[in-house]
Amino acid sequence: MVTVQEATDIILANPGKPRVETIPFHNSIGRVLAEKIMADRDFPPFDRVTMDGIAIAFDEWKAGHREFAVEDIQAAGSPQKSLRDVSNCIEVMTGAILPEGTDTVIRYEDVNIQNDKATVLVQKLERGQFLHRQGNDARQGSVLLEPGIALSPAEIALLASVGKGEVKVYAFPKTAIISSGDELVGVNEEPELYQIRRSNAYAIEGAMEQMKWEGRQYHLPDRKDFLLDSLRVIEADHDVLILSGGVSKGKFDFIPDVLEEIGVHRLFHEVSQRPGKPFWFGVSKKGKVVFALPGNPVSTYMCFYRYIKPWLLNSFGAKPASLEAILAEDFSFTPELTHFLQVAIKVEQGCLKAYPQPGSGSGDFANLKHADGFIELPSNRQHFKAGEAFSYTPFRLG
Amino acid sequence: MVTVQEATDIILANPGKPRVETIPFHNSIGRVLAEKIMADRDFPPFDRVTMDGIAIAFDEWKAGHREFAVEDIQAAGSPQKSLRDVSNCIEVMTGAILPEGTDTVIRYEDVNIQNDKATVLVQKLERGQFLHRQGNDARQGSVLLEPGIALSPAEIALLASVGKGEVKVYAFPKTAIISSGDELVGVNEEPELYQIRRSNAYAIEGAMEQMKWEGRQYHLPDRKDFLLDSLRVIEADHDVLILSGGVSKGKFDFIPDVLEEIGVHRLFHEVSQRPGKPFWFGVSKKGKVVFALPGNPVSTYMCFYRYIKPWLLNSFGAKPASLEAILAEDFSFTPELTHFLQVAIKVEQGCLKAYPQPGSGSGDFANLKHADGFIELPSNRQHFKAGEAFSYTPFRLG
Repeated sequence: MVTVQEATDIILANPGKPRVETIPFHNSIGRVLAEKIMADRDFPPFDRVTMDGIAIAFDEWKAGHREFAVEDIQAAGSPQKSLRDVSNCIEVMTGAILPEGTDTVIRYEDVNIQNDKATVLVQKLERGQFLHRQGNDARQGSVLLEPGIALSPAEIALLASVGKGEVKVYAFPKTAIISSGDELVGVNEEPELYQIRRSNAYAIEGAMEQMKWEGRQYHLPDRKDFLLDSLRVIEADHDVLILSGGVSKGKFDFIPDVLEEIGVHRLFHEVSQRPGKPFWFGVSKKGKVVFALPGNPVSTYMCFYRYIKPWLLNSFGAKPASLEAILAEDFSFTPELTHFLQVAIKVEQGCLKAYPQPGSGSGDFANLKHADGFIELPSNRQHFKAGEAFSYTPFRLG
Repeated sequence: MVTVQEATDIILANPGKPRVETIPFHNSIGRVLAEKIMADRDFPPFDRVTMDGIAIAFDEWKAGHREFAVEDIQAAGSPQKSLRDVSNCIEVMTGAILPEGTDTVIRYEDVNIQNDKATVLVQKLERGQFLHRQGNDARQGSVLLEPGIALSPAEIALLASVGKGEVKVYAFPKTAIISSGDELVGVNEEPELYQIRRSNAYAIEGAMEQMKWEGRQYHLPDRKDFLLDSLRVIEADHDVLILSGGVSKGKFDFIPDVLEEIGVHRLFHEVSQRPGKPFWFGVSKKGKVVFALPGNPVSTYMCFYRYIKPWLLNSFGAKPASLEAILAEDFSFTPELTHFLQVAIKVEQGCLKAYPQPGSGSGDFANLKHADGFIELPSNRQHFKAGEAFSYTPFRLG
C-alpha cells in the first residue's frame, strides 16, 4: 500500500510520450499548445487611433491654434494619409492608422465641426493622446505564448491575430476505457433484479470529453481467460488503459493478475485513501500506462480527476491547476486513510467554502448530485475544523 | 446610457425561447437538462454487498456461533441464492445481491477460510454491516435531477444508471457571429501595414464552444447599403445576432442605424462601463435578440462573458454561477464608469485572489495572456483596497 502522495509521485514519474499534431487554429480551444507563438509583426502594427475624432499636430495646438480645417478622412482599413498643411486636421476613425504629420487625437466629443472647420472645445490636451503606439503590446518576433498552456478563446483569437491558421498541439494518447463486472448491463437493457446498468465508463468518457480527450469503450466479463486475451489485444492497440472494476479482493477480481501476466509491471496496488483504496497502477514493457480503478462509481470518478487528469496534463508539460477550498463545517473521519470528501462549493466573499456532502455512502452517482468536487483530508488526523483550507479537486467546469 | 445593472436587467428580461431537443445521453456533457430525471427503480435496486467476504445470519453470531461452513458463492451479477442452513455462510462478492437468509457481511480480512469453513477472527460485528440497503440512495419514482442544470460527467453516468439512452436538453438558438470593420483581413491573408487580422469572431466562437453553442460567422464591410441588405437576411435566418464593431461614434459606424432600419428595436445603446461603453442591445419584431458589441477585442470578449453567456443560461432556466474574487492589490480607477478590470487569479488558502493585469490598455488580445477573467469595480468609487471582494467573471474553464 502506498500513500496518496507516493501514488501521485509514481504516476507523475511515468508520463506519456505525446505526439504533436497540427490542427486548424479554431479547433484548438482547450487543447495544450505544443509550440511557441511569436508576434509576426509589431502589435499594434502601426500607431493606431483609439477614438473617433480629429488628428492634429500637437505643436500647432501648443502654439495657440484652436481651429483646424478638415483636410480629409482617415478611415480604419485605409492606407495612411498625410496632412498637407500642418495647421489643418484629418478626421480619424477608431482603428485607423494615424495620418502622417499628425501626432495627437481629439475626440468628437471635444470638438465642434462646422463647414469643414473643427473648433477645439477643451482647454487641455496631451501630446499623443488617444493613440496606441506601434509595438506597445509586443515587438515583432517576441514570444506571445509558450508551449504547455491550455488554449482559451482569447488565445485562439491571438493565434488569429498573428496569422496562425494552423497550430501545433499535443495529441491525446490512444485510450481504452474498460469496464468489467458481470452485474453490469447496457444502458438500453432492462436489468434483472440483481443487475445494474453500466455507468462508470460514461463518467470517465465524460470527464475526458471535458478535456477533448477521446477514448474507446470496452466491456469485459469477469472471466480470466477472456480477460487475458482481450487485455493483451487492447494493450497492444492503445497507449493508455483506464480500467474500472475487478481490482479488489473478490474471487472474480482477476484484473491485477491478468495485467501482470500480459506484461504490465505493477508500480502500486492499493492507496491509503477512501474511496479508491484498491487502485492499481502499472506500465507495460512497451511503455503503455495502465490505470486500474476500483469499480465503485465514486472511486472511479474521483481517481480520474485526482490522478489521471493531472497525469495527462503533466505529459503535455502543462501545470495542473492547484486549488484549495475552506471546510465550512466541522468534519470527522476516523480511519487512517486520506479521505476524499465530496463537497458542494459556495463562493462566499471571494473564498471557496466546502460543504460536506457525504451522501449515503453507497458510492453511487446518485450521491454526487450536490457535489461540485472533493477536498482531501489528510490521514494523520481524525477531526477537521471549519475554517481550515484543504486541497480541492473540482468535477464541474465553468 | 444605462448602468451595468440596468443593462443586465434589460437583457435578462428578454430571454430566448429555446426549443427542446432529444439527444443521445452520452453526447449531453455540458448541455442544460430540459426534463426531470426519475429513478426507474430503487437505488440501490437490491440489498447490495459492499465488501468481498462472507454473508451470515447475524442471530447465529449473536448466539455464539463463530465457525460457518461455506455453502456457496454469490457473485456480482448472479441471481440471488438462498442460505440452506442458517448456521452456514455464503461467500459474497462486492456488488452482489445479498443472499436470502443472510443479513450481515464479514470481510475476507476478518475471517480465515480453510477447507470450506470460515472462522471469524474479529470480536465485534454489527448487524447489517457492509451492505447498501435497497432504496437507500433513492426510491423508485423519486426525482434525481431537475431541469435547468448543466450536465456534468457524474450526471451523464446517472442518466446511464436509470436507462436514459436519450435525454431532453435545451437546443441552442441559431446564432450569427458578425464582425465588421474594413481594417480586418482573414487569418490566412497577409495584412497591409494599416490592416489587422480578424480575431474577435474567433474569440466569440471559442467562448460559445466552451458551452457547446455553435454560431455561424459573417464578415461585413463598413458600407451602409451592404450592411442593410446583409443584416436583413441574417436577421431573418437566425434567432440571435452577435455583432462586433461599428457601434461607436465613427463616420462608418452604421450598425445602430442599420439595425433600427431593419426593425430591431433598440433597448439600450451605451453602458456606463469600461471597456465596452458603446454596447448596443435590441430585439426585433420577430423576437430575434441582437447584441451589438464594440469592436475593441477585450470589450467584445468581456461583454460576451458578462452579458451573453448569462443571457443564454437564463433562457434555459439555468442559474449562472455567481463568483467573487478578492482584490489582491490596491487599485484606482477615476472615470465614473463600472470598470471591468482584467485579473490573474491565484487561489490562496481557499480564497480567489485577483491580481490586476491592466495590460497596455490597447484592448487587444495580447493583453489578456495573463488574465483569467475580470472583476467588476463599481462606478461610484475611485479607490479600491486590497482585501475587498468583487464580482468575478472567469474566461478560462477547468
